[in-house]
Amino acid sequence: MHSVKLDLKKRSYNIIAGCSVLGLLGKQIRKLNIGLDAYVITNSSIRNKYGRVLERALIRAGFSVRFKIVPDTEKSKSLTTAYSVIKDLAAYDRQKRIFLVAFGGGVIGDLAGFIASIYKRGIPYIQIPTTLLAQVDSAIGGKTAVDLAEGKNLAGAIYQPRLVLSDVKFLSTLDARQIRAGLSEVIKYGIIKDAQLFRYVESRYKDILKLRAPVLEYVVARSSRIKAGVVSRDEREEKGIRTILNFGHTVGHAIEAASGYRIYNHGEAIALGMLVASDISRSLRLIDDNVPARIEDLIKAVGLPTRIKRVSLAAIINAHYRDKKFIGSRNRFVLITGIGRTKIVENVSLGLIRQAIKRRLD
Amino acid sequence: MHSVKLDLKKRSYNIIAGCSVLGLLGKQIRKLNIGLDAYVITNSSIRNKYGRVLERALIRAGFSVRFKIVPDTEKSKSLTTAYSVIKDLAAYDRQKRIFLVAFGGGVIGDLAGFIASIYKRGIPYIQIPTTLLAQVDSAIGGKTAVDLAEGKNLAGAIYQPRLVLSDVKFLSTLDARQIRAGLSEVIKYGIIKDAQLFRYVESRYKDILKLRAPVLEYVVARSSRIKAGVVSRDEREEKGIRTILNFGHTVGHAIEAASGYRIYNHGEAIALGMLVASDISRSLRLIDDNVPARIEDLIKAVGLPTRIKRVSLAAIINAHYRDKKFIGSRNRFVLITGIGRTKIVENVSLGLIRQAIKRRLD
Repeated sequence: MHSVKLDLKKRSYNIIAGCSVLGLLGKQIRKLNIGLDAYVITNSSIRNKYGRVLERALIRAGFSVRFKIVPDTEKSKSLTTAYSVIKDLAAYDRQKRIFLVAFGGGVIGDLAGFIASIYKRGIPYIQIPTTLLAQVDSAIGGKTAVDLAEGKNLAGAIYQPRLVLSDVKFLSTLDARQIRAGLSEVIKYGIIKDAQLFRYVESRYKDILKLRAPVLEYVVARSSRIKAGVVSRDEREEKGIRTILNFGHTVGHAIEAASGYRIYNHGEAIALGMLVASDISRSLRLIDDNVPARIEDLIKAVGLPTRIKRVSLAAIINAHYRDKKFIGSRNRFVLITGIGRTKIVENVSLGLIRQAIKRRLD
Repeated sequence: MHSVKLDLKKRSYNIIAGCSVLGLLGKQIRKLNIGLDAYVITNSSIRNKYGRVLERALIRAGFSVRFKIVPDTEKSKSLTTAYSVIKDLAAYDRQKRIFLVAFGGGVIGDLAGFIASIYKRGIPYIQIPTTLLAQVDSAIGGKTAVDLAEGKNLAGAIYQPRLVLSDVKFLSTLDARQIRAGLSEVIKYGIIKDAQLFRYVESRYKDILKLRAPVLEYVVARSSRIKAGVVSRDEREEKGIRTILNFGHTVGHAIEAASGYRIYNHGEAIALGMLVASDISRSLRLIDDNVPARIEDLIKAVGLPTRIKRVSLAAIINAHYRDKKFIGSRNRFVLITGIGRTKIVENVSLGLIRQAIKRRLD
């Protein structure tokens, strides 16, 4: 069991990662003194698989439990769903001391965190992520949001949970594609901040894909530590520190958007975005040829895509300039100067971006 | 012209109060460097009366302006309206640097502030309050929220504006009842924190009701200073300091709710709540008889209600215990030990509360 502290002074919280750590939950929440009544936002598939064991852990510790099931689809991450959950929550909330529990993957975490941030101007919530992607990334750091038809993550807040509990047991029912999607972010942490983690994934990726608990535990804990360190130094992305977490995301988001969020999942699109970003880094002579080759080898080995299929260059460039991170036509790329080292470069020329994307197109 | 700084370190902002100060707006916003495109949320009555002059002030300073009109009713302070405004905002927001402007009374300010807090996880906004109540109270301090059918202010955020500009010229078209509603909060500031302001209102209330600009300017500036001081010391109501602003609000809210928000407006209900709270303070021997008498005399003189009509004791007590400020059945009252001095008392006996309300019932 690993415990990582995300240090934000009075708003600090722990990230607990391990195998079968759900049993610790009740005691942990009691220590936090955040309420008596757990309002658990989840979907029916998680509820069926793990609802019982969560319920027991909470009830044993003296909490009341209510499950709120939202549909198991990306579309649940919407203002409409948030509205209907808040109405249910308000109707349920009479003489109670409610805290929220986000119990699921990224969609559930983002939705529940957003609801916690606005209900009664903010109530406590905890994250119990059940996918690798959520355990290593989205459940940590307080970025919450819902999508609008007009764009992803357009309504949201930066609002920190009071605890993140990542039990790798929940990962045992994930399919290989979901594991790879999470692994993409783990590889990202290696590339931007931790050459040792990168090497670890190079040597142990087969064990990760086979869902070996100790290996997963190590990967989740180490990734959590990196993200916690970055977020604690730049919670609101104001100092150019948290920005490095966007490595591969600039073009990755554009690929996702250009493909209508249908061809690639987030992790796959980020893998492609990292390949483009490392290519740009090489074109700018920030790294030697061997670094992009090593990155591509690993991405290929774990089974993530290395070629962009069924999306046009024009569509990607277009989506790139619609991204909410851009103001006017300026851009800002997280590039690398080696495995574990980043450099932020502004106004990378469109020619260079096009070239790098083009090389990845099928 | 008065300028008051609300000190919250990096999130500090100015409150500018005066007569015909709208002309300063463009320059002030430029200094803040918060964007180029003003998205003004208002209602049709404000738009018709003052839209032109605001538009000119912004365009002259080089900003683009778009008005978003929401219905001129309390119901605009809803999640549904927020949703439709955000959709419009997202569709409008292409290659822009948008900041929001809340241009209206408390409903507009709360709605626009809430939207600013969640759109893209928070964008800058400024408050241009057009009612006395909003100028002395709701536009200051960052409490934003919308109502649900299940209760008032159930979805919201504490999210500070970047500037508050209170032009008392906007008050010239308010009717007497609206002025009195604002005056109720001014009297509150006097009672909890500023005996001199209380005396000023005692001697000048006729000029206030006649909308004499210099008198209004003084009252708005002085109230802004008090609220700014309190908020800067306890933004999130965690230290028991901001709590004193709730003087009269515990029972006041209950009276509003018990009357279905139809009989009394907020200021009127707060006036009644202050009478009840001063009565409780006397019963607990925190003050002499002459203090409640002086408060009642002033409330009566300005034309605010001193008797509770058409609402039952049971309904008020019931609403009191449903108030979101209560957990379980504990209560917490802001009481007074004199004009300008408060004391927070927990668990005031129900008997005492009932007695004090009863004395006000018709």
